[in-house]
Amino acid sequence: MNFKKLGKILGKIMILESILMVAPIIVSLIYRESLRNVLAFVIPAALLAIIGSLIQLPKVSRNTLYQKEGFALVAFGWIVMTLFGALPFVINGDIPNYIDACFEIMSGFTTTGASIVDDITALCHSTLFWRSFSHWIGGMGILVFVLIFIPESNEGSSMHLLRAESPGPQVGKIVSKMKVTTRILYLIYLGLTILEFVILLFDKPIPGYENEKVFFSALTAIGSAGTGGFGFIPGSMELFNPFSQYVIAIFLILFGVNFSLYYLILIGQARAVFKSEEFRTYGLIVILAIAIIFGSLVLYPNVYPQNYTIEEAFRHTLFQVASIGTTTGFSSTDFNLWPMPAVATLIILMIIGGMAGSTAGGTKTSRIVIALKGSYINIRKLINPRYVPKTKLEGKIMEDKTVNGVFAFFTLYFFMLIAVVFLLCLDPINGQTVTYVSDAGTYTVKHGLFSNLTAAISCMSNIGPGFEAVGAYGSFSGYTMLSKALLTLTMLIGRLEILPVLILFNPKAWKKF
Amino acid sequence: MNFKKLGKILGKIMILESILMVAPIIVSLIYRESLRNVLAFVIPAALLAIIGSLIQLPKVSRNTLYQKEGFALVAFGWIVMTLFGALPFVINGDIPNYIDACFEIMSGFTTTGASIVDDITALCHSTLFWRSFSHWIGGMGILVFVLIFIPESNEGSSMHLLRAESPGPQVGKIVSKMKVTTRILYLIYLGLTILEFVILLFDKPIPGYENEKVFFSALTAIGSAGTGGFGFIPGSMELFNPFSQYVIAIFLILFGVNFSLYYLILIGQARAVFKSEEFRTYGLIVILAIAIIFGSLVLYPNVYPQNYTIEEAFRHTLFQVASIGTTTGFSSTDFNLWPMPAVATLIILMIIGGMAGSTAGGTKTSRIVIALKGSYINIRKLINPRYVPKTKLEGKIMEDKTVNGVFAFFTLYFFMLIAVVFLLCLDPINGQTVTYVSDAGTYTVKHGLFSNLTAAISCMSNIGPGFEAVGAYGSFSGYTMLSKALLTLTMLIGRLEILPVLILFNPKAWKKF
Repeated sequence: MNFKKLGKILGKIMILESILMVAPIIVSLIYRESLRNVLAFVIPAALLAIIGSLIQLPKVSRNTLYQKEGFALVAFGWIVMTLFGALPFVINGDIPNYIDACFEIMSGFTTTGASIVDDITALCHSTLFWRSFSHWIGGMGILVFVLIFIPESNEGSSMHLLRAESPGPQVGKIVSKMKVTTRILYLIYLGLTILEFVILLFDKPIPGYENEKVFFSALTAIGSAGTGGFGFIPGSMELFNPFSQYVIAIFLILFGVNFSLYYLILIGQARAVFKSEEFRTYGLIVILAIAIIFGSLVLYPNVYPQNYTIEEAFRHTLFQVASIGTTTGFSSTDFNLWPMPAVATLIILMIIGGMAGSTAGGTKTSRIVIALKGSYINIRKLINPRYVPKTKLEGKIMEDKTVNGVFAFFTLYFFMLIAVVFLLCLDPINGQTVTYVSDAGTYTVKHGLFSNLTAAISCMSNIGPGFEAVGAYGSFSGYTMLSKALLTLTMLIGRLEILPVLILFNPKAWKKF
Repeated sequence: MNFKKLGKILGKIMILESILMVAPIIVSLIYRESLRNVLAFVIPAALLAIIGSLIQLPKVSRNTLYQKEGFALVAFGWIVMTLFGALPFVINGDIPNYIDACFEIMSGFTTTGASIVDDITALCHSTLFWRSFSHWIGGMGILVFVLIFIPESNEGSSMHLLRAESPGPQVGKIVSKMKVTTRILYLIYLGLTILEFVILLFDKPIPGYENEKVFFSALTAIGSAGTGGFGFIPGSMELFNPFSQYVIAIFLILFGVNFSLYYLILIGQARAVFKSEEFRTYGLIVILAIAIIFGSLVLYPNVYPQNYTIEEAFRHTLFQVASIGTTTGFSSTDFNLWPMPAVATLIILMIIGGMAGSTAGGTKTSRIVIALKGSYINIRKLINPRYVPKTKLEGKIMEDKTVNGVFAFFTLYFFMLIAVVFLLCLDPINGQTVTYVSDAGTYTVKHGLFSNLTAAISCMSNIGPGFEAVGAYGSFSGYTMLSKALLTLTMLIGRLEILPVLILFNPKAWKKF
């Protein structure tokens, strides 16, 4: 490991986080919060700046990074950002326990949105802002990560952006263009965020929160840009006006799209977007999910307690498909109580997630496409052992390496999921009953295997809520610290697509070579 | 497709089934059942003999079978056996609905043991015998299938038996030795079955069933040999004496072992058995599962209602680990009510299943070993892209082909599982409550996602019972005919390890080439 070079870059990341913390400090000052609340951000920011400067001091002997060091850097970056990003919650007392605070901010940076906060109204403005802002920062981080570190063959279409200008994998060119493309990505990301913010300002204020319109619009925009799902008032987005709910749903679907497709539109290749197989599959999944859920809500009105009108049924369907399908996790209603076909559809959406190269989590639409095509190839090979596949992906012949990488990914995802569920099943919370209040009334649920399964999927896919005890109106606060630490790690593993985190556990990664 | 040759072999299979049906006819005559009950087997046997002879008449122009035809043959064989094997239940009136009857006998032939019979006491002796006998027949079938059709590279150790005598893959030799090895396999299978039967005869009769000792011992032995799980008295094996429960548990663990290892013992290479990585892993899984479940039963006696003594806790743990771990599905107690760590462990056992080359189902111990080693290789490759894996499996360097095949299998297993669970979630039974009576009292459970998930795993892995509404004391009878047909197909897909069944749905498989 080239620790000096790693330290240099980590130092830069720390100083970046220190600068980013100026934003919640400003929020804290605007809302005239107590000195302690302001210091809650000033102290960690100062610490980050000092330590970040110090670890940049040693002279770097080798300026290059090997691939393993790149992955380690990303994992370390996320961990360091979390360890310091959790401090404000502990200092201002909003989340006194450090492990809880780490869970919360890791949930933020990984754009998960799972929360251990039971009473959201007790949080101060700067805390609320830092939580939502961490989604936006995390989303920005993941865009670069996907762009730089995931090799083309493993990802299918994450390098679209680069390919658009320089067809064929020319590594030299890619590296030289990296700075330009990163900047373009950020501009698209920033532009969409601001657009959503401005449109949301046109709505009436949320009833009961008349003074918070600008603040809430900002929180909503940055939270949905990162496809993170932290709420800031009780009931997530249940109280939002229908106009806002529609706007948010549409923007969420947009943030689940591979960002390189926006780039294609910018350079006048809009046609290519609609030819993209991944885009078509994403669209098909969204439409199918809406059809199944809307259908089951309309056809079985007596199976769930909310008694929606047709418009409500459609709006909540659209909102939840957008929110769960992009692994965001906002909720407009208690979908826990929906008919079983709707619940099953949402769980499948949780596993799939958004497109590669977006801020969304999950196993990604592109991997589903590749796995299905790969399975078809396997069937054909069984029919005729001499069959030579010429299956294409996005117009190019799909390599064996790509398919095998995706199969390996799903196997690991499946195994990790089983392992996490098993470990959660050891938690003493199992068998206990949890009471929650939602738009449909008061419900008591037993914390069981279904809760653990959806908690694990939710963290692996960076969604936020699960079902049953960890549903949109429930919370992860009931788990023991050990389970919370496990889920914190799970969020990171899910966000970095498993392998980059696992290599940290291999002693071989620490050796010089 | 070489339909004439396929017809010829299918005809032979049908005549074999016709001959096998003589056994239940004899049982029917011994127990002086009504003429209708005897005819229930005589008529299908006659039909099988006549049709089986007729389809052998056309002259075969090409005597060889391509690989795809081999797979199609196996799938067709199972389907034809099921379609005719279901007739006795319909004719004697024990299971009047034909789809139900197909579910039941497919569950038998695939050694699953999931049942739609609500009142087991209403079944006649010949029906009970045919159900358990179908496990034994299915187990025999799967041993040949694994031996002949699964290519060596996909399976790891299924070809052990052949390799033992002729090291290195020499295809010519293998084919010529096939008849000998098949005969040896059957002798081991038959020998173990008879041994279990004889040992069971030493026990006291089951209280309340004093006259049925020989019959029940026979049913138990043939059922456990096939690792199928059909019961024949209420409560599965709850009323069996402890001695029998211990004996059955030990034999189940033996039937979950790769049969080629017994062959190694026979030819004096017992040492090689203990060197087998798959065998060691299998042993480790069994011991770990016993430790976790026994531990949770002893440590949390108040979490479950049965209040076992230490001996009972150990016996039920051993019995359920043996029964679920080998995908048999017998039960000695209501494990549905056990503490969550025990439940989670059993579900993982359901997914893993027994060793390759045994009669057990599941994803197989060997695949778990290969997938874990393959994942380690992937991590190493990420650390050092030039890493050349020399990872060994059973003493030989593991080929990329093997690893990729296993990854593809797990991906398909994961996808199939999700698809089946989703389709089961459309069933109107969801949300309904089901009441069952077990050794711990009367329980009411809601049919929900957990029921569907474990029903799907249970059928994919050929176990029998799941949890909640489809638990050991529940039944699959509540599902609609459509769901039952789906689960019938799922059992076959699971038994034949997915791909052989899927190729039947590909039009390319039907073309001549």
